Order: sequence, then C-alpha cells, then structure tokens
Amino acid sequence: MRYAVLGGGKRIRPILAIAAAESVGAKIDPLLAHFAALELIHTYSLVHDDLPALDNDDLRRGRKTTHVVFGEAMAILAGDALLTEAFAWLARPIDGVTAEQRLKSIGVVAGAIDSRGMIGGQVADLEGHIASGGTLEDLQFIHHNKTGKLIIASVLLGGLLGGARPKKMEALKHYGQALGLAFQIVDDLLDREESSATLGKTAGKDAAQGKLTYPAIVGVEAAREEVRRLQAAAEENAGIIAGPVNYLTGIARFICERRS
Amino acid sequence: MRYAVLGGGKRIRPILAIAAAESVGAKIDPLLAHFAALELIHTYSLVHDDLPALDNDDLRRGRKTTHVVFGEAMAILAGDALLTEAFAWLARPIDGVTAEQRLKSIGVVAGAIDSRGMIGGQVADLEGHIASGGTLEDLQFIHHNKTGKLIIASVLLGGLLGGARPKKMEALKHYGQALGLAFQIVDDLLDREESSATLGKTAGKDAAQGKLTYPAIVGVEAAREEVRRLQAAAEENAGIIAGPVNYLTGIARFICERRS
Repeated sequence: MRYAVLGGGKRIRPILAIAAAESVGAKIDPLLAHFAALELIHTYSLVHDDLPALDNDDLRRGRKTTHVVFGEAMAILAGDALLTEAFAWLARPIDGVTAEQRLKSIGVVAGAIDSRGMIGGQVADLEGHIASGGTLEDLQFIHHNKTGKLIIASVLLGGLLGGARPKKMEALKHYGQALGLAFQIVDDLLDREESSATLGKTAGKDAAQGKLTYPAIVGVEAAREEVRRLQAAAEENAGIIAGPVNYLTGIARFICERRS
Repeated sequence: MRYAVLGGGKRIRPILAIAAAESVGAKIDPLLAHFAALELIHTYSLVHDDLPALDNDDLRRGRKTTHVVFGEAMAILAGDALLTEAFAWLARPIDGVTAEQRLKSIGVVAGAIDSRGMIGGQVADLEGHIASGGTLEDLQFIHHNKTGKLIIASVLLGGLLGGARPKKMEALKHYGQALGLAFQIVDDLLDREESSATLGKTAGKDAAQGKLTYPAIVGVEAAREEVRRLQAAAEENAGIIAGPVNYLTGIARFICERRS
C-alpha cells in the first residue's frame, strides 16, 4: 500500500479538494486526511488497472508497478485495502463539520467511483478495444466515468467539507466538469506525443492497444482546441468561486498545459 | 456483480445483523439495505479470493466462480464495485438513526475489513502456505482477521443501528467473538469431512494446499471440543442480549452444528 501511494504522482485530486476548500474560505488542516482519501482511491484504481488481467502495465509513476514488485495477489489486496482505508478516512470526525456533511461527502465520492462511475468507465474502456468503431459518444462516456467523475467529486468534496454555499457548489461542479474532461483529453494527447520517461508510465499504449482516444477520433488539432475551450470554461468558473485565495485558475492552467 | 451476489450463500452476516437488531428491540425494515451491505462486502472478498492469483478456485456457492464466467478483469472490477457499493449503502440516511451512529457504523465495518482486519488476515493466509511450521497463534491471527472481525462487525452493526445500550453492545461483541472463531473452525472441519457437492465449493483444498487449519494443528477432536466451548459462550451471551425476540441462540447452534 505504501509503495503504491507514496511512489509519486501529481496528487491532483487532493490538491483540487484543497484548492476548492481554500477558495470558499475554509481552514484546510482539519480536512487533509479526508482529502488524502481521494489519493488512496486514485491509487487503488491505478494498482488494479495495471494488473495483467486489465491493462497489463509494468511502469507507473516512473517505477515498476505494484504487482511487478509484490506479485499479483498482493497488488489485488493492496488495492482493496486502499479503497477500504479511503472510506475509513472519509468517515473520521472533523471539528466544525457536521456528521450529515461527512455522510453526504461519502455518498458523493462513492457515487463517483461505483459501477455507474469509475468502474463503469473502466468496464467500457476494456470493452472498447475489443469492439471496433467506437464513437465520440462512447469515448466521452468512458472519459466522464473513468476519470471525470472522481475529479468532479474531488472539487465537490473540498466545497462540501469547506462549507461552500449552493451557488459556489454549482460553480465548483462546472469547474470540475470542464477540468475532468480536459484532463483526460490532455492525457490522450500526451500518450501520443511524449516519451515513457517523461510520463513515468508507458507511452504510446493507446495506439498500440487500439484504444479509443480523443485525438484518434476528432484529430489532434480539434482535441487541442477542445482543451482550450474547457480551460476557458474552468477559469471562468474559478472566477465565480474564488475569494481572496484562488489556486483553482492556476491548477486549470497546469492541467491543460502540462507536458507530463 | 449480480451473478456473484445473487448466487446463493448462507447470508450469515446480514442475518446476524438482523438478529442483533431484533434482539435489542429495533424495527429492522429501515435497516435492511445497511445490513445487506455486509453481504456485498463478503461477496467482494470471495470474488477476489477465488481469483487465479489468490486461491484459484473455480467453484463457489455451487456455481462457477465469477472470473471463470466473466474473465479475470471483470471479476476484479466487480469485486471493487461491490465494496464501493457497500459503503454507499452504509452511508444512506435511515429514519430514526442519527448521522453520528451511521458514521460510527462505517468506521466499525471499515475497521473490520482493512489491512489490519480482513485483508491483513488474507495476506497472512497467503503467506501461511509458503512458510512451513505455522503455529496455533498464526492460525488464530488468520481466522480472527480474515473471518472473525467481519462477523463481529455484523453483530455490532445490528446493535449500533438498532440502538443497543452499552451493556448489550458488550455482550454482542462477546457473542460475535465466539461465533466468529467457531465459524472458521467449523469451516476447517467441513473442508476435511464433506464433499464439494455438499459445500458448494471445492472441498479438501486446505490439505491439498498445505494450509494451516485448526484440526491440522490441534487434531479433529480438540477442534470439535473448541467449537462446543465457543457455542456455549455464544449462547450464554445471547441470553444476556435477548429481549422478547431471540434468534441469536438458534443462529449460534446453526453455525456450530451445520454440515455445509
């Protein structure tokens, strides 16, 4: 579990939660364990996705994948335990946050990663390189579920536990929606354009596995244009949300313009 | 997910939760989804344990295991989604049960199945048939963590959501502890004595895999004697807990005297 979680990564999901909570004026210290649960969940999904029966990948975050180092059985169990630990952390008491708010946040996170969320997207993704002729709609379904919903939930978790008012929660949702989709389109572009060394994971894999990707369907230029459009939408909503502290705009820029 | 969950099984964990809640006078209808979450968790653990990388079993509850029917990738994801769904169900609102009680129950269940609980027991079990010369202490660690803690948590969940007073919660804990250990010793005995057809899962597997079992370490007669002792302890505590409705005594008898 430690090998998988503490092996680097961009920590985008907890960072988004922190930025959302800060932008609505919350003190984030008491919320950090709850936000870190998002990284446990993301890591569990990577550990399981990298297994031989799924994506069969041996490089992640610049290191050997968990199952390569500890074997498949331990990787499966480590992923299971990370997911379990995440919910235990989300259920922990927090000073100044009601039990109702915490329960609601568990519902938001669980709803993002269940069979109608992240797992559903992963199943569609696995089936996508079997079925030929996937459409842009298929791809958007996969992206939205596999990656987008947890990113949206991360932003919402920050708002919920940070005590955001309804109008700001709405803007946080729009911010997360734009960013979630942009994140995955950028991932698709980087998989074509960058090396494994730069990415810290196997590059060129989508094309090799015949996976549906955004640039493969709409072309590289249209994909880049869509990222620009989504970045603008995210930044517009960041402007609605932000109080004196605003990292949300910078994070949107980072996610959309990153090279790894 | 449906294939795995709806394929039969004794449903002992939700039944224990129901019996515990009824014995402290609670109405169980509003609690059923929360108790059913225990069966989702138990099923997820079976689906993952049966995978080729773990116990590599192709028979469960009298049917082909999930990965045999749907492939390894889908079995891994189905298990992940069942675990996620369980926490979503536990987080649901219940009339007459406070948010604090629900959060506490999530902590109790998560604590029973995390890396210091069920997963920890499973890891020790996997390592147990590699290392030779396991002791009775090793075995009790495995049993207590892999099986016992979720059974105890099931009884406690019934008490917690049923509104049990501290004295009865204490007796429920003792009841669960006795029953959890008895359950696994009986499982070990049945694995030696019964056929696969009777059990609905592969019989004789422990000996074939050189696994630590209770009868292998202390002998069949001492194992049977221990079950009798634990049954008496469980029944004594059932007497402390029970109000007008008492299924706990009968469940203890069923678990200790079952032939499958």
